[in-house]
Amino acid sequence: MMPTIKDVAEKAGVGIATVSRAMNGTGYVSARSREKIETAIRELHYIPNERARNLSRKQTGIIGVLIPDFQTPFYASFLRQVEMELYNYGYRTMVCNTVKHSDREAAYVEMLDRNMLDGLITCAWSAEAEVYRHMDKPIVSMDHNLGEGIPLIHSDHKTGGRIAAEHLLEKGCKRVLQLGDYFPVYTPSNDRYREFHRIMDEAGVEVRQLDLEWNRLDYEYYEKYLSEHLRDVKWSDAVFASDMGAIACYRFATERGIQVPDHMKIMAYDGTDFTRMMMPVMTAVRQDITKLASSCADTVVRLVQRKEPVRMHRIIDVEFQKGGTT
Amino acid sequence: MMPTIKDVAEKAGVGIATVSRAMNGTGYVSARSREKIETAIRELHYIPNERARNLSRKQTGIIGVLIPDFQTPFYASFLRQVEMELYNYGYRTMVCNTVKHSDREAAYVEMLDRNMLDGLITCAWSAEAEVYRHMDKPIVSMDHNLGEGIPLIHSDHKTGGRIAAEHLLEKGCKRVLQLGDYFPVYTPSNDRYREFHRIMDEAGVEVRQLDLEWNRLDYEYYEKYLSEHLRDVKWSDAVFASDMGAIACYRFATERGIQVPDHMKIMAYDGTDFTRMMMPVMTAVRQDITKLASSCADTVVRLVQRKEPVRMHRIIDVEFQKGGTT
Repeated sequence: MMPTIKDVAEKAGVGIATVSRAMNGTGYVSARSREKIETAIRELHYIPNERARNLSRKQTGIIGVLIPDFQTPFYASFLRQVEMELYNYGYRTMVCNTVKHSDREAAYVEMLDRNMLDGLITCAWSAEAEVYRHMDKPIVSMDHNLGEGIPLIHSDHKTGGRIAAEHLLEKGCKRVLQLGDYFPVYTPSNDRYREFHRIMDEAGVEVRQLDLEWNRLDYEYYEKYLSEHLRDVKWSDAVFASDMGAIACYRFATERGIQVPDHMKIMAYDGTDFTRMMMPVMTAVRQDITKLASSCADTVVRLVQRKEPVRMHRIIDVEFQKGGTT
Repeated sequence: MMPTIKDVAEKAGVGIATVSRAMNGTGYVSARSREKIETAIRELHYIPNERARNLSRKQTGIIGVLIPDFQTPFYASFLRQVEMELYNYGYRTMVCNTVKHSDREAAYVEMLDRNMLDGLITCAWSAEAEVYRHMDKPIVSMDHNLGEGIPLIHSDHKTGGRIAAEHLLEKGCKRVLQLGDYFPVYTPSNDRYREFHRIMDEAGVEVRQLDLEWNRLDYEYYEKYLSEHLRDVKWSDAVFASDMGAIACYRFATERGIQVPDHMKIMAYDGTDFTRMMMPVMTAVRQDITKLASSCADTVVRLVQRKEPVRMHRIIDVEFQKGGTT
């Protein structure tokens, strides 16, 4: 007689609900119970019955969205747009703040693999692209190339880097401090740094790179970090940083009597709403978050609904935001 | 013979998957198909079979979180904390940006009712509390009293209002402009306004209320609105507003030569990270977002796991944030 879920539960010494949660990967199951359940399933040669499997295979109407940190202005705004787009397509949004934990990222990819999600939009960059490889599932990646078969959507960061470099050159900057997160592996968002560097090199302008943590929201962090690198700050006549880094630099410099923009020009990258709430408005390279979000939502939905064609690579224009910090 | 889902699909002239999506409320189903399916179900006296219903009754490990707008700093930060807490409890977070659409809020309450969610944390205030009434499901509400049986968690807004009022009185303010969103129905967050008004009245200080939209992120909006009420702005010697409103007022006043804090004191409410990124730092009443989030997560999980006791009303302390705008 074929073993049932009840037999598995008995053998594992746990409740049926726990076995079901473990099999469906939903809800909390302790590592120990999970192990006992897996052993029981192996020993009993238990096969989850067909109807259950079919039911679990049906579409859930849920799209997962992996965000490095949804408190940061860029992603908070992106998430807001994506959720509204997906909602209008009739899908719910399940979010995960990966905060650089690759295990969390992997957990969501696994949920996708188990059909608990219909699709995934990932802006995360913690996990090895390997996690995504060889997965024949609807995945869309923003900013990070996850390899063959996974649509990639990102801003035209190369042009963004060029706009920033040319603007600072126009303003006569000679010693530029670049604050940011340059990814060890290649990813399109690195192009803004590469292109920025390339153009500055050509113009014979020195660029010093400080590896500030990206888009932190606590000024104490910036204050401490910039104080430790005060020599570099004083050396430079221009700064190129992400929105929060640029806002923090503005405050750090001004508090020390370094006048912006007279003695120091500050150029922000992302150009989120906050750069326009500031006084003065930050000069910035502005990413089109609305278009990035709608492209990601549209693409993942096309994949889920098997609509052709699906563009495998989409580059969204960036624009220059005139401000008072350069 | 009992009708099957196949019969319903045939009668309605749609696919079985569509019927299943319609019944489970997952994925997109056009209004027209939905109507045809509902008619077919009625006419065939179709009863979804027991196993399917039981399977759909199992816990999903998903908690829904309803947020008025997760781009605003307070909620972006709250959502980040809640998601991390829930993740650590072994639950996934499904988010909905209600943007004041009560229908979206109702849709999530319905998902909860259909056991597609194990629980719900709602910070939304668009729907009638009626939507939540008589629901014997794990629901936790932040800031809004949804009635008997639904745990309520909120900051000590009454003390918040008092701190703001007493600080502005100490600073000698005589004519206060209050910008904000006073809810037509009673909700604990109104207490900050009520208490603020009460103390100001006692002190014989006039308070004018401008109903600014809450926490907008586009300065253009504030600029337009405040320009239309320039007489009130010029009349006042103090402003009490939410973080973004306070930041916008600071810029609006300063750009017009009204010096802050000499000629105008500005007091922010929420005290999110951005008020500390500013220069000067905004004087503010600070809500403890981390504690609000962990209380909401802890409470909803206790309800889902039927752990006693569950506190039905929790009030989280607020604190004064010293800044340079008063």
